[in-house]
Amino acid sequence: SRSINLAVVPGDGIGQEVVAQGLKVLRSVLPQDVKLETKEYDLGAQRWHRTGETLPDAELESLKTHDAILLGAIGDPSVPSGVLERGLLLKLRFAFDHYVNLRPSKLFPSTATPLAGRPDIDFVVVREGTEGPYTGNGGSLRTGTAHEVATEVSVNTAYGVERVVRDAYERANARPRKKLTLVHKNNVLVYAGHLWKNIFDKVGEEYPDVTTDYLHVDAATIFFVTQPERFDVIVTDNLFGDILTDLAAAVTGGIGLAASGNINPTGRFPSMFEPVHGSAPDIAGQGKADPTATVLSVALLLRHLGYEAQAARIEEAVAADLAERDGSAPRTTDEIGDALAVRVAS
Amino acid sequence: SRSINLAVVPGDGIGQEVVAQGLKVLRSVLPQDVKLETKEYDLGAQRWHRTGETLPDAELESLKTHDAILLGAIGDPSVPSGVLERGLLLKLRFAFDHYVNLRPSKLFPSTATPLAGRPDIDFVVVREGTEGPYTGNGGSLRTGTAHEVATEVSVNTAYGVERVVRDAYERANARPRKKLTLVHKNNVLVYAGHLWKNIFDKVGEEYPDVTTDYLHVDAATIFFVTQPERFDVIVTDNLFGDILTDLAAAVTGGIGLAASGNINPTGRFPSMFEPVHGSAPDIAGQGKADPTATVLSVALLLRHLGYEAQAARIEEAVAADLAERDGSAPRTTDEIGDALAVRVAS
Ligand SMILES: CC(C)[C@H](C(=O)O)[C@@H](O)C(=O)O
Ligand SMILES: CC(C)[C@H](C(=O)O)[C@@H](O)C(=O)O
Repeated sequence: SRSINLAVVPGDGIGQEVVAQGLKVLRSVLPQDVKLETKEYDLGAQRWHRTGETLPDAELESLKTHDAILLGAIGDPSVPSGVLERGLLLKLRFAFDHYVNLRPSKLFPSTATPLAGRPDIDFVVVREGTEGPYTGNGGSLRTGTAHEVATEVSVNTAYGVERVVRDAYERANARPRKKLTLVHKNNVLVYAGHLWKNIFDKVGEEYPDVTTDYLHVDAATIFFVTQPERFDVIVTDNLFGDILTDLAAAVTGGIGLAASGNINPTGRFPSMFEPVHGSAPDIAGQGKADPTATVLSVALLLRHLGYEAQAARIEEAVAADLAERDGSAPRTTDEIGDALAVRVAS
Repeated sequence: SRSINLAVVPGDGIGQEVVAQGLKVLRSVLPQDVKLETKEYDLGAQRWHRTGETLPDAELESLKTHDAILLGAIGDPSVPSGVLERGLLLKLRFAFDHYVNLRPSKLFPSTATPLAGRPDIDFVVVREGTEGPYTGNGGSLRTGTAHEVATEVSVNTAYGVERVVRDAYERANARPRKKLTLVHKNNVLVYAGHLWKNIFDKVGEEYPDVTTDYLHVDAATIFFVTQPERFDVIVTDNLFGDILTDLAAAVTGGIGLAASGNINPTGRFPSMFEPVHGSAPDIAGQGKADPTATVLSVALLLRHLGYEAQAARIEEAVAADLAERDGSAPRTTDEIGDALAVRVAS
């Protein structure tokens, strides 16, 4: 009989609330013969205040034993900026070699968008997850003085770039439009940019059916708002991917709907699924958070584990739910979770 | 009697066409007693193909002798990416210590925007121009092999950050809303991010009337499309400023309207004014380029040199011209330049 051994990291702020709904929908959609085991990990701001720990080695080892991780949100204003992000969230992404940070963007027919003309938006960003300016490589000299020098080093390797570029080609090749756009800034960041572009071109030779395109990151943001329909699959570096996917979320109905998967395609480490949004401390605990992004992240999780039918059922349920949201009274986090759980129930 | 000794660098693609209109409007707006001298510099793709040079020392020295520089656009697909950008455009910005890269964004009433609901947009981005990931600091090891490692180093100094932050506070303090937003990514780029944030907070103590705010760059892109009216003055690093100002241009009517000034506020070196857009080789030589961004850059140039009344007259002329564009037949580059020159004529 089948089973899913899931690690749950609710984290901070609205993380708790949205993860509860994700689990509710997950339980509802799974066939009865699939045994779901969950283990909750107490990680985030409260733990740090209590013990000073962000992600102890023992916890990291324990997390490794799961099939996948569901994460809510990390970060709190009471903790110095960077401590939890780097000590917990990014530590997980790096330790588990989540080199594919997968972020689909789709504008559902009835969802509000800030864009006039409601363009057709349906693309996926493959964001590199283990390199670039996120490596923590850098430092500060004469800190706090008038002579301080602070550096941040973007580290890019052929090994790291090729594997994510290849993953993006595979995804593009499997989609009807078969189009892949590389986004970088190779007219300024020439060392990293040329590495990315050369590998992009070289790997492309193996995918003759995929149409390719290159855009500088600044130009890409323009097209995100003027012509988002031009994109199918986008592959880009860790920092550009961070920026572009928030913008993508904004034009497809907001950060309340944007799902993501931090994927290790080799299966050597568990992949981790989380909404793109942050911990939103301003609305935490009030039942105002939209759990849809987490529920859609659960769909990505199921797809990753081979439960394609269940993943699709969640996505259909979300589409149906969104179609009814327009003009109706706002619901609580819990109510949205309930509605989705009912829709996906088998 | 007064005089302006202007260096003109038309550059590549549509650069020639738009700069011609900028000069036309400049000649038209200047009082008769102001003597305008211009010297054109042949720099860009053609020069590089001919001689292999991007910006020879002699030319750099000669450029220094001018009161200001008007630049069209740099970059061509026939030249390897980065050669002209780094060897010419960025070389000028760095050599002349253009630490304030000033980029105003305003949505004129009749201008088309991709945003539904036509929010009120009127902010200015103060982009740092001489540091960050633009320093050219980095390299590549085992280039072209499967073991390549490419790095890009963002260099940030207290000296460099403080002077641009102070400039931004001054600008915010002089505007009615007196609001300044720092944009960075200090939860990930902690060394550079903390340097920026600490200096931002410290300098802020000298400007008690200025309301301050901090946003991560990813969140900032969301607000650019959902709530751009929240911004007044933004100060940010070189790369984030590059990305944000293209997005800002997109939501305020497009890159055809976005002006910029690369300013050395000390007056030690000439400041340089240029449209935010690139050389657009696809439409070069067809009279299709909108010269408005260049004309608005000329307004920034005049303001910098102390010709406030003339700068304002250009901006009013553009506003009036834009008000009549809606629904009328498209005009050539030259026709738009002519119309603006007539409007500003004294
Ligand atoms: C919280 C932060 C470290 C994170 C990132 O920058 O990757 C977030 O913005 C995201 O996009 O998942
Ligand atoms: C052409 C390029 C080097 C330049 C930059 O990145 O600064 C341009 O995009 C700009 O914004 O002026």
